[in-house]
Amino acid sequence: MADWQQISGGITAPKGYKAAGITAGLKPSGLPDLTLIVSEVDAIAAGVFTTSQVRAACVDYCRERLQTKSTTRAILCNAGQANAATGAQGMIDALESAQAVAQALNISSDMVLLASTGVIGQRIKMDALKSGIPNLVASLSETGSDAAAKSIVTTDLVTKSIALETTIGDRPVRIGGIAKGSGMIHPNMATMLAFVTCDAAVSSHLWQQMLSRAADRSFNQITVDGDTSTNDSLIALANGQSRTPAITEAGAEADKLEAMLTEVCIHLAKAIARDGEGATCLIEVQVSGASDDESARKVARTIAGSSLVKSAIFGRDPNWGRIAGAAGRADVIFDQEELQITLGEFVLLKDGQPQSFDRVAANEYLKQQAAKNLDGDRQVLDQPVVIGVKIGNGSGSGKAWGCDLSYDYVKINAEYTT
Amino acid sequence: MADWQQISGGITAPKGYKAAGITAGLKPSGLPDLTLIVSEVDAIAAGVFTTSQVRAACVDYCRERLQTKSTTRAILCNAGQANAATGAQGMIDALESAQAVAQALNISSDMVLLASTGVIGQRIKMDALKSGIPNLVASLSETGSDAAAKSIVTTDLVTKSIALETTIGDRPVRIGGIAKGSGMIHPNMATMLAFVTCDAAVSSHLWQQMLSRAADRSFNQITVDGDTSTNDSLIALANGQSRTPAITEAGAEADKLEAMLTEVCIHLAKAIARDGEGATCLIEVQVSGASDDESARKVARTIAGSSLVKSAIFGRDPNWGRIAGAAGRADVIFDQEELQITLGEFVLLKDGQPQSFDRVAANEYLKQQAAKNLDGDRQVLDQPVVIGVKIGNGSGSGKAWGCDLSYDYVKINAEYTT
Repeated sequence: MADWQQISGGITAPKGYKAAGITAGLKPSGLPDLTLIVSEVDAIAAGVFTTSQVRAACVDYCRERLQTKSTTRAILCNAGQANAATGAQGMIDALESAQAVAQALNISSDMVLLASTGVIGQRIKMDALKSGIPNLVASLSETGSDAAAKSIVTTDLVTKSIALETTIGDRPVRIGGIAKGSGMIHPNMATMLAFVTCDAAVSSHLWQQMLSRAADRSFNQITVDGDTSTNDSLIALANGQSRTPAITEAGAEADKLEAMLTEVCIHLAKAIARDGEGATCLIEVQVSGASDDESARKVARTIAGSSLVKSAIFGRDPNWGRIAGAAGRADVIFDQEELQITLGEFVLLKDGQPQSFDRVAANEYLKQQAAKNLDGDRQVLDQPVVIGVKIGNGSGSGKAWGCDLSYDYVKINAEYTT
Repeated sequence: MADWQQISGGITAPKGYKAAGITAGLKPSGLPDLTLIVSEVDAIAAGVFTTSQVRAACVDYCRERLQTKSTTRAILCNAGQANAATGAQGMIDALESAQAVAQALNISSDMVLLASTGVIGQRIKMDALKSGIPNLVASLSETGSDAAAKSIVTTDLVTKSIALETTIGDRPVRIGGIAKGSGMIHPNMATMLAFVTCDAAVSSHLWQQMLSRAADRSFNQITVDGDTSTNDSLIALANGQSRTPAITEAGAEADKLEAMLTEVCIHLAKAIARDGEGATCLIEVQVSGASDDESARKVARTIAGSSLVKSAIFGRDPNWGRIAGAAGRADVIFDQEELQITLGEFVLLKDGQPQSFDRVAANEYLKQQAAKNLDGDRQVLDQPVVIGVKIGNGSGSGKAWGCDLSYDYVKINAEYTT
């Protein structure tokens, strides 16, 4: 039983946060492109960032900030230009962006974190950004989550948002999150941009630990196309405005908070996978019987990321051979004679032996699950195509999420940029 | 300067080999599906096989054979059924296949190696295979390479074949090779099926070393879709029928033989990448400036395998940001301020800084390279799209090959099987 309930309000559901999203003229499309999230008091900040050797200036900037300072007041995010592979000028632009927003908020510039998304190799349109900041700050609102969720997106078809509430010390505590995804979704770290707000009081060290573990079980378990971005950033703030007792060590309350944080991250990660470029359905891979959770997650990721598996699901084809093939190359040792593969309720392979199953019914299952996801509602996350894989008798288990590979993925990516 | 010349004859160009390919009724399509390669004397045999945990029975069979016996006389290959994930029965079928062909050739059954390709989870059609063997053996010919090259393919659009000749001790030595590829092409090991024949005399240990290194520079450097097969096998025979001095230790002659072997493998690997499912052109990624060759190869592989890079090339889009992004996530440490990216003659990024370049001309370059590859001739291997990446000042370099990602890849893979 989940120990929380879903509430409305996104990242402004937790107490003491305001957000805004406006059109500042950074995107050629004229769509919203500048986002600000502000905590009314200093918030404990944690972050997980791309592991790529080619990183945006904002990623280096945030890593450095978080190393020297555990609190922050604001997150500024621009869409349109990734500010990655922009050399020394990229860092100058990043610093200038932070200064401009700090000045407008009347806070110290080292209390601002940054994120960028857009075309690699393009500098931020600094004039547009700077002239947009007064309007951005003026737009800050305690109901600004939707505007913020809209202004961080690029090729996303829907916005991604969630808020959950639980109780700690008999008082309500909330976590909210927004994310963007779509292309270049793949582990390490993870996934595009996700911003999480929380009004619990929690120690800096514990909050970072919780976030890293949550990322491993959520954003690092989704894959759209195997490409890790230069800009992937997950930033989570905790500002204590719930006035609940401070969580400073492991225990029941820390577990409760971490479970809710993980759930927020999983929801956003699934929403990103579901909204993968060209996707027609969400795929959930459940792996069990591994020696440990990390091995299980690795197998799940490899299957969810296999182009052949993804194409088969798009073709509504219960092609378990491709699932077996992907499991086998995950760099996790197992005995193929113990391999079991299920698709929904259908057992396709057991003890390494092909099982006779109703192919027509299995094909129908795939069609039906996809149909639940089609017709425009890319927010349906509770009806994925479920692939179950058992690789042995160990206690390790894990999940990963992906989407099918369609003609439209190729179309979108052959035609983007220039 | 290459120390060899290209000759005709494929795997029957080297002395002392016969080959055959026939239709035995294993493929539903009625196309050729049974292949036999025979050396008239015991040949030193080396092999490189898939590293997948889910392997075909023939892979386990060959690994075991090669561990206990360094020579072989024949390779039997069936297409249509992969004989992977077929449990204990798969191994029984494999042993029976080897016995049947050994009996017909009047050799010991442990002198037969096996390979299979086709649908995972399907047993070999043993009745068809066994009743086809007399005809197969009767068809063996010293000009049988083309027939063999035709009967090992599945979704390939063209056959892949090559033969080279050099001199060792003033006498001619030849290496021939055939391969199949198309889907499920990705490192570790490698790539579908490739069979290499050589008439040099070389020690078993040296031949295996040469083959492993050649595979690392060829088959392990191509990627079509990131999926490693359950059946990937590269088998190379050396039967000494050139009557040249035996090569038993490192030195100039061993180097010469290894260089020619590597060239044969690279030719076949490029042919497989070029013929990737749905591909419209061959992509060659040249990486330099790495600390060692393996790091360079890793970066090259990651770029060649990136769905986003592949989609961009299909869109004829000089999108260097995606190339930088892929390089960055290759798990090889470098300084992004030293990154240089070229496309053909165009310098797109230098010292980590975007360069101004003629986008129209770069787009034209991509169109022209692809056009040289289009119009049905999937055998053009000397006009790839060339992506150059320098990651530093080290001496390590390496190449990888891939193909673009087109609508047809999805179409082919959404509609295969069932």
